[in-house]
Amino acid sequence: MSNYQRPLRLAMVGGGQDAFIGAVHRHAAALDGRYVLVAGALSSTPERSRESGAALGLSPERSYGTWQELLDGEKGRVDGAEVISIVTPNHLHFPVALAAVQAGFHVICDKPLVPTLKEAQELEAAVKQAGTAFAVTYNYSGYPMIRQAREMVRKGELGSVRKVIVEYHQGWLATEQTGKQAEWRTDPARSGPAGALGDIGTHAEQLATFVSGLTLEEVAAELTAFVPGRRLDDDASMLLRFEGGARGVLTVSQIEIGRENDLRLSVFGTKGSLSWRQEDPNHLLFDGLDRPRQILTRGGPGTGGAANAMTRLPAGHPEAFIEAFANIYRAVADDLAARERGAGVNPDYPTVKDGVQGVEFMTSVLESAAANGNWVSLKGSG
Amino acid sequence: MSNYQRPLRLAMVGGGQDAFIGAVHRHAAALDGRYVLVAGALSSTPERSRESGAALGLSPERSYGTWQELLDGEKGRVDGAEVISIVTPNHLHFPVALAAVQAGFHVICDKPLVPTLKEAQELEAAVKQAGTAFAVTYNYSGYPMIRQAREMVRKGELGSVRKVIVEYHQGWLATEQTGKQAEWRTDPARSGPAGALGDIGTHAEQLATFVSGLTLEEVAAELTAFVPGRRLDDDASMLLRFEGGARGVLTVSQIEIGRENDLRLSVFGTKGSLSWRQEDPNHLLFDGLDRPRQILTRGGPGTGGAANAMTRLPAGHPEAFIEAFANIYRAVADDLAARERGAGVNPDYPTVKDGVQGVEFMTSVLESAAANGNWVSLKGSG
Amino acid sequence: MSNYQRPLRLAMVGGGQDAFIGAVHRHAAALDGRYVLVAGALSSTPERSRESGAALGLSPERSYGTWQELLDGEKGRVDGAEVISIVTPNHLHFPVALAAVQAGFHVICDKPLVPTLKEAQELEAAVKQAGTAFAVTYNYSGYPMIRQAREMVRKGELGSVRKVIVEYHQGWLATEQTGKQAEWRTDPARSGPAGALGDIGTHAEQLATFVSGLTLEEVAAELTAFVPGRRLDDDASMLLRFEGGARGVLTVSQIEIGRENDLRLSVFGTKGSLSWRQEDPNHLLFDGLDRPRQILTRGGPGTGGAANAMTRLPAGHPEAFIEAFANIYRAVADDLAARERGAGVNPDYPTVKDGVQGVEFMTSVLESAAANGNWVSLKGSG
Amino acid sequence: MSNYQRPLRLAMVGGGQDAFIGAVHRHAAALDGRYVLVAGALSSTPERSRESGAALGLSPERSYGTWQELLDGEKGRVDGAEVISIVTPNHLHFPVALAAVQAGFHVICDKPLVPTLKEAQELEAAVKQAGTAFAVTYNYSGYPMIRQAREMVRKGELGSVRKVIVEYHQGWLATEQTGKQAEWRTDPARSGPAGALGDIGTHAEQLATFVSGLTLEEVAAELTAFVPGRRLDDDASMLLRFEGGARGVLTVSQIEIGRENDLRLSVFGTKGSLSWRQEDPNHLLFDGLDRPRQILTRGGPGTGGAANAMTRLPAGHPEAFIEAFANIYRAVADDLAARERGAGVNPDYPTVKDGVQGVEFMTSVLESAAANGNWVSLKGSG
Repeated sequence: MSNYQRPLRLAMVGGGQDAFIGAVHRHAAALDGRYVLVAGALSSTPERSRESGAALGLSPERSYGTWQELLDGEKGRVDGAEVISIVTPNHLHFPVALAAVQAGFHVICDKPLVPTLKEAQELEAAVKQAGTAFAVTYNYSGYPMIRQAREMVRKGELGSVRKVIVEYHQGWLATEQTGKQAEWRTDPARSGPAGALGDIGTHAEQLATFVSGLTLEEVAAELTAFVPGRRLDDDASMLLRFEGGARGVLTVSQIEIGRENDLRLSVFGTKGSLSWRQEDPNHLLFDGLDRPRQILTRGGPGTGGAANAMTRLPAGHPEAFIEAFANIYRAVADDLAARERGAGVNPDYPTVKDGVQGVEFMTSVLESAAANGNWVSLKGSG
Repeated sequence: MSNYQRPLRLAMVGGGQDAFIGAVHRHAAALDGRYVLVAGALSSTPERSRESGAALGLSPERSYGTWQELLDGEKGRVDGAEVISIVTPNHLHFPVALAAVQAGFHVICDKPLVPTLKEAQELEAAVKQAGTAFAVTYNYSGYPMIRQAREMVRKGELGSVRKVIVEYHQGWLATEQTGKQAEWRTDPARSGPAGALGDIGTHAEQLATFVSGLTLEEVAAELTAFVPGRRLDDDASMLLRFEGGARGVLTVSQIEIGRENDLRLSVFGTKGSLSWRQEDPNHLLFDGLDRPRQILTRGGPGTGGAANAMTRLPAGHPEAFIEAFANIYRAVADDLAARERGAGVNPDYPTVKDGVQGVEFMTSVLESAAANGNWVSLKGSG
Repeated sequence: MSNYQRPLRLAMVGGGQDAFIGAVHRHAAALDGRYVLVAGALSSTPERSRESGAALGLSPERSYGTWQELLDGEKGRVDGAEVISIVTPNHLHFPVALAAVQAGFHVICDKPLVPTLKEAQELEAAVKQAGTAFAVTYNYSGYPMIRQAREMVRKGELGSVRKVIVEYHQGWLATEQTGKQAEWRTDPARSGPAGALGDIGTHAEQLATFVSGLTLEEVAAELTAFVPGRRLDDDASMLLRFEGGARGVLTVSQIEIGRENDLRLSVFGTKGSLSWRQEDPNHLLFDGLDRPRQILTRGGPGTGGAANAMTRLPAGHPEAFIEAFANIYRAVADDLAARERGAGVNPDYPTVKDGVQGVEFMTSVLESAAANGNWVSLKGSG
Repeated sequence: MSNYQRPLRLAMVGGGQDAFIGAVHRHAAALDGRYVLVAGALSSTPERSRESGAALGLSPERSYGTWQELLDGEKGRVDGAEVISIVTPNHLHFPVALAAVQAGFHVICDKPLVPTLKEAQELEAAVKQAGTAFAVTYNYSGYPMIRQAREMVRKGELGSVRKVIVEYHQGWLATEQTGKQAEWRTDPARSGPAGALGDIGTHAEQLATFVSGLTLEEVAAELTAFVPGRRLDDDASMLLRFEGGARGVLTVSQIEIGRENDLRLSVFGTKGSLSWRQEDPNHLLFDGLDRPRQILTRGGPGTGGAANAMTRLPAGHPEAFIEAFANIYRAVADDLAARERGAGVNPDYPTVKDGVQGVEFMTSVLESAAANGNWVSLKGSG
């Protein structure tokens, strides 16, 4: 008997040469042998798309000049792609994702999902109608110790959650930057209405709600563009109110010199608390009332099923960013395999719903900041 | 030739048996041999005052039953106390300090200085009139690496400060506590109008402005009392606006289980940034643009005069809380010695002015929180 | 123009279900898309080999019952495997590797290479004669910050190396263990003459010499089997003498409760020093004379070409064990691609020579320990 | 009723201006108000002794020119010193300590106690005969979490101790140094036969045996003088054999650039293990079998009576080097107070016996190193 699953056929939109995140998606897809990259429309110009495709070994006829050609071409093949990864700058997420979903493809899409609530809802409806799988790469939720944290909250080991602090510190945009990564992220036409807020604030929001299990109800926010001439926020701080009286603080920045990718989460409950840092992802600190602090390690004693399902290596053999990212990809593959064998739909990954929630968050924060920090209810959450 | 300075005669109000902070003040005063404790009114009842005095070796006639008796008694002696330490619960700071100042004593007073702006201004005026020394034990500003941080900001090594994050995490009031320390701090009659805000929020505010050199102009705050039945906030989070466009986040709590005395400060500028944690006080992280992170150590290479003046031991021989506290006491002694030899007034310690600033902060935060987090200008700062 | 390289055809000997290290090799081979697994003899019994092969999606005719069948079968195919990964228990390394080399396959073999110097030299001679690529998975030398460390030593940033401390702390064999991993490692018939010494001591020795660039000349060792009934050492400590007067300490253990995979290296020179920990692999501490400590980060400022060539992600996006392992696999693929295009042989990975050095080390340590810790010269190093 | 104890009258030999350790002893004596410094012979020349005495506020007639004058002078006063602190370079420990003991003074003496076993035994005999208190400032054993560690070992929480690793890393002598501290420590005439070995190796040995409770039986050592022209070892590494089969590694150095005062201890038993670092002294790591790691904090949950007796501040308010040093001084004062009230002799501090053990250790290490690392039994330990 075999537990083997044939690799899914994957096509990628965006992610050509020099695109950091495209390479990450490819490593993540490759790591477990559950995907094979068969097609791509990898750049915004047909010529560069084909060059990038060749550099990745795609056959010329499946290295498409545009994403529209890709969807058409793959749709028409018996061996066509089953899953589309969308790793373009933000402004293309919506048209590509919508078309892909409507064409019946499964989709793995980067965040923030889309720029406005209207588009978010339209996309969510399309996914619902199509019945396809739709993952949003809130990749930090793929870390095993984040799963451990969520499981501990769910099991009540923290009691009722009272306070959540989530921080995402970066410094790479502290000065006027050039370069592909910086350029589109600071351009409203491609990045959307939010800068750091959309790029990393949505990660912070997703992680906080994912682990705490709480619904975020209101935000009071301050957005700042520190670098002269910058048109989008490069720093965002806000107070949070969750359902049931829990409170929170969220601060993200891309101008904090020296901070690399310093995402941190602390959750405090009536019985215990948890702390985690992305740059040390294999450890989770747990404090119980009147007990010494514990350091839980990935693969180590005290971890539960949720973390272990995301774990490839024994304790002390660190897993990191790519492995967490790959956990999202693997979960999509598992979901599709389960569907194929009639075992139903069970998405153990962030879905379009989570993507929509991120857009709600972003929209409310923008509104609060525009109103001098007034408390604003999350759109659509009521 | 001698650099010897005779010890100052010190009297203490409050700080009897079981009072944590009284013992800290006594260790701090003793450490450098610059003070000798000669008198005390150590408890709120005459009998316990005298017992505590005896336990400390005070002569019976200088172990007073009340603080009024102490001021009177010491005033009348040729060998009377020169400096009064006030380490009572908050509600007594004002009457004792005012009377002590008016009687011509130098004062070292705990924080928060007084409950209201009116009292703060009255006390400040009294100090001005008396010309006496008045220190407020914002003890964290006595840490050498905090001095180092301030000096680096002043020298422009961070460029212009853009963002300040200050956090003060404690968990010891996460449940309904009994015990002397917890009891008065959660009682408005003795603690004043603020709970965690006054107890540790004022430390956070002072540290942030002390190091950054920025004036805090506006706050938008959320205060919470998480523990059922608690009458004062046990958690306070807020957004900050500083002069010149700098922004900040301040979050303090006494309900974060497992956090002991976790005060943290990060300052981000246009050219570099700094991070420091009170629980690892001998290290200061410095990040310059496009340079590897540096760990500055107390007593180690790269530290400047401001830190070194506060340093007793070589690098690697850690100094900690008592030494930092003692630096405040020693600076008061240095100031008085300089006055005595006619070298003028040069208080290298937090003064009544800093205490007043803390009250302004506290008052504005209370007002903002009462107004659902509206931005409130700091009283008196304009 | 394309930088694409077709994937190499890989076969695996050992590494069936439940074998930790086999899965690691497969992830490492998959990560960069430079290998495709085409065949395997995955277990010690034909039946389990075939089951494991099916679970990995191998075609039944290339899921061999024995390694001899695999070599024969793949040799005879035009699309036969080019590279053989040997991930069996230690006692099979020699016969499989020798046969594979003699059959003209490239080999990636686990460590310790073989049990005795005689076999090591025979294998080395065979590799020389065949002219094939032969990598030994001293995987820790694949970490980018280890490459950075080596480059800094080579560039003279440490001056002359005086002292090397290398430690490898594990605790998983602190009690009598059962389970596949523990069982064969504590069995002389399968593990060879050394326990912890062979399993992790050889890693420590390789890392120390790889980074320091020094030849190890003498060892004075103590081997201990702490767990009652254990037939092989589970703890090894020794003093080291390197060429040119440098000194060292090496201690490894598998009975240190709580230690997971805690490999540490410190190198001290006349001008500076370096420290690195495997469980925090993205950071490298550098201390220069009279300068603050620097924390170099993978992908961050101050890293050089050697590290960057091993780096996939920006700073702050941690890479870890699998990525380091994959760097060995990728380097083999790069070497073979260079050979194919006539660019010569340039193995940027540990080769059979390094494997032989490890056997020399192991042999000398065993001899020293047997002689009550007398200093013993490394065999073959003269 | 009062728990007050009158301060002991303290005299100091050595420790004049610029002497780091003299100031430490004075801070330690002052911290708890249990000593008052009444006399000193602070420098090696009468003139500088008197200058230093004046600088500390000693009365001129008790600021002696030589230590002999001090002993005579204080002996003859009704208010004469009771306790003599000896903080000279090593070569004076023996004559001063012997004379002080024979004159009936209690003594607090720096380490290493004396240069040879003969002197050690003579001094020990003198102490026995005099019946006076004699403390050796193995100050690291005054850290609360070291007491916690010892208590946990004693209570069996680690099971049987199998392995001890003790390290003491310094870098301040990495180059040819001038300056008072460096000068005498590298001069055999004043430092004695051992350099780093005596200066910090004895601390390491004492800490290891203090915590583990094991008797050190044999050493196999390598001593090195790395800095050209240096006449004493600046680096010492050795293997250890303890009673009952436990093994150990000890490495100390003063040429490890960047290391400040990095003393570390790990103790591994059959049921658990402990790790502690002097530069982070408020934390103790505990690993139990198959349990998550715990971080015990000074003053925090899980600490026992031994640690708490050494603790002044609540958890999170760090205590450090001076407080640990002061714990030794306070323990001497407690011992003398107990003797005074007839409660017997109970020295909770390192005594002359521990000092003698350190000399035995030093002697055996020197012998082993001279014999090319042969195992040498500790003198006198049988």
